[in-house]
Amino acid sequence: MTAPVQTVTPVILSGGSGTRLWPLSRPERPKQFLALTAEETMLQLTLARTATQENYSTPIIVASKAHAALVEAQTGGEELVILEPLPRNTAPAIGLAALAVDDPATVLLVMPSDHVIADVSRFHDAIRKALPLVADGWLVTMGITPEGPATGYGYIALGDALGEGVQRVERFVEKPDRAKAEALLAAGNHVWNAGIFLFRVDAYLAALDRFQPEMLAAVRAASDGAVRTGRWLSPDAAAFAASPSNSIDYAVMEQADRIACVPVDMGWSDVGGWDMLHSIADQDAAGNVSDGSATLIDAHGCLVRSDGPRISIVGLDDIIVVATGNDVVIVPRGQSQLVQKAAESASIRLRAEQAQDGLPPVPAAPVPTD
Amino acid sequence: MTAPVQTVTPVILSGGSGTRLWPLSRPERPKQFLALTAEETMLQLTLARTATQENYSTPIIVASKAHAALVEAQTGGEELVILEPLPRNTAPAIGLAALAVDDPATVLLVMPSDHVIADVSRFHDAIRKALPLVADGWLVTMGITPEGPATGYGYIALGDALGEGVQRVERFVEKPDRAKAEALLAAGNHVWNAGIFLFRVDAYLAALDRFQPEMLAAVRAASDGAVRTGRWLSPDAAAFAASPSNSIDYAVMEQADRIACVPVDMGWSDVGGWDMLHSIADQDAAGNVSDGSATLIDAHGCLVRSDGPRISIVGLDDIIVVATGNDVVIVPRGQSQLVQKAAESASIRLRAEQAQDGLPPVPAAPVPTD
Repeated sequence: MTAPVQTVTPVILSGGSGTRLWPLSRPERPKQFLALTAEETMLQLTLARTATQENYSTPIIVASKAHAALVEAQTGGEELVILEPLPRNTAPAIGLAALAVDDPATVLLVMPSDHVIADVSRFHDAIRKALPLVADGWLVTMGITPEGPATGYGYIALGDALGEGVQRVERFVEKPDRAKAEALLAAGNHVWNAGIFLFRVDAYLAALDRFQPEMLAAVRAASDGAVRTGRWLSPDAAAFAASPSNSIDYAVMEQADRIACVPVDMGWSDVGGWDMLHSIADQDAAGNVSDGSATLIDAHGCLVRSDGPRISIVGLDDIIVVATGNDVVIVPRGQSQLVQKAAESASIRLRAEQAQDGLPPVPAAPVPTD
Repeated sequence: MTAPVQTVTPVILSGGSGTRLWPLSRPERPKQFLALTAEETMLQLTLARTATQENYSTPIIVASKAHAALVEAQTGGEELVILEPLPRNTAPAIGLAALAVDDPATVLLVMPSDHVIADVSRFHDAIRKALPLVADGWLVTMGITPEGPATGYGYIALGDALGEGVQRVERFVEKPDRAKAEALLAAGNHVWNAGIFLFRVDAYLAALDRFQPEMLAAVRAASDGAVRTGRWLSPDAAAFAASPSNSIDYAVMEQADRIACVPVDMGWSDVGGWDMLHSIADQDAAGNVSDGSATLIDAHGCLVRSDGPRISIVGLDDIIVVATGNDVVIVPRGQSQLVQKAAESASIRLRAEQAQDGLPPVPAAPVPTD
């Protein structure tokens, strides 16, 4: 006797406006809309991950209203697109998606729109392993086998096995410092929190109702007042603005009881900076990564990305150069987070990305209302 | 009894098309037409050096025909401008200027158009010291007190004193390697050859007649066939093309007998590369030289020049970044000559600059004819 086949609805979160890949990634065209690792943009790669699989229904994309034209240009036209009138972080965004689905038994696969997964078959293996618990009402997260003592991710401490390839989540660990990250690795049974979740619509809404009733009320009001035009769904802005801003991690996952994790090693990267892009991209014999228009002479270990000027590097190693039409930023490789200093200096506000990255809610800034 | 006051005619050689300051300096807008050290361009600074002095007549500019519009835009409109139909190096260029002067007793002050001289009063002191010998038919060159064992300049070995502040030239020394440059400095009595000359028109033409009769014949034919329109003098292209291409150093100065030198310490620089510009420009407290539009954070000893993109450097020391609308070149400071590798790669031909720099004539390349 086999379990009935469950269909899965991908929910792609596209609300981020990253500065870690500044100056290519900007609020008006953030990372998920860039072709960083392939000819397709990150959003397109995310959509493609489930597009040819059986048992997946049409995806839901939750995007910033400001990016509607980019979504239109980069998607097939079948997806439901929920346009956030303003950013409220991931928990309300997923709430909008959950409320847009008719059948409360629907399984949602929640994914960031700007990650790469090299081994898609292992990704689907992990989903298959998660589904029995998901059907049973568990909230399931994917945990990435750590490749080193990274300090840029939250960690998940794994507990007892709950089934084949699925373990109870013992606890979530905040982004650690280097020493703590090494200790977590040495302890074993810790994985990176990749922000990929699987759960039934009703399970998520029940968790919101229990732990974030105010958020659920605001999101429900925003959904009730939503205007649908073709595939575009525009929630009520004032109602959505009334929602607390919080990540699914803080608002739900760290509160709830029946939380499981599927550890998986699938060539995952959040492409969380230029250093990371250098490490996952194809390097030439000199360790350089460039898009072909650059001139690299006596240069090693460099990364060059330009959508405008022709970059020439001669006699320098291990630098990162990123150019757009009007901005050229140069930082040492291994410290590509320094681009954020340049971005700040260029008056790019980081607030949106911090919120999207699941950091604690920052003190409320004046909220734009439409 | 005082000697009669001689008037001096500045001859400004503007035929170079440098790549050492690539990508800002390009064949279509070489160094002399750039504002590198001040708000004025190098050509304008060169003109200003004699503009307010007594006893100077209107300058003659010898420029490439291709740069006529730049000369027009950057000069006062009084100068005689001789437009070289094609490059033939400095000896023929000076020949054109000499033949454009009516009075053979006229004293020419031949200057490159792309050098800086910080102490102009010492420059004029040196000229005053040279004039008695010039009046007597000597060919006089200025010799720069060396600031170090530079390998980028020819040297002049000084002989006996010929008058106040003037010495006989013992011999010219080709650009030395480092060890030889140090030996020359240790020996003393050696100065840098700056390419600044003083002589009477008849003395120069006589030297050409004696040592370069073929060149003089071609230059004379080009002058005889010249077309003058207002202040613009266009020598006959075919006749000028028939001239050998050679520098005044090789063609005349190293051949002739009565060659004198005025050693002078006048804050001279040929701005012969980005490193040199960094060293002569105003540095901020972190040793950076930039034009104000750049963002420099945790950066030291850098040079940034951009006429287009906004450059941000974070966490890097001692790099040189030069950007134009479509080219950005990045090299280590102290090795700014490496930009030439990038320039070559960018298919900029070096031939014109090599010729202008007084190197031996390179094997003839196909010559553009107008």
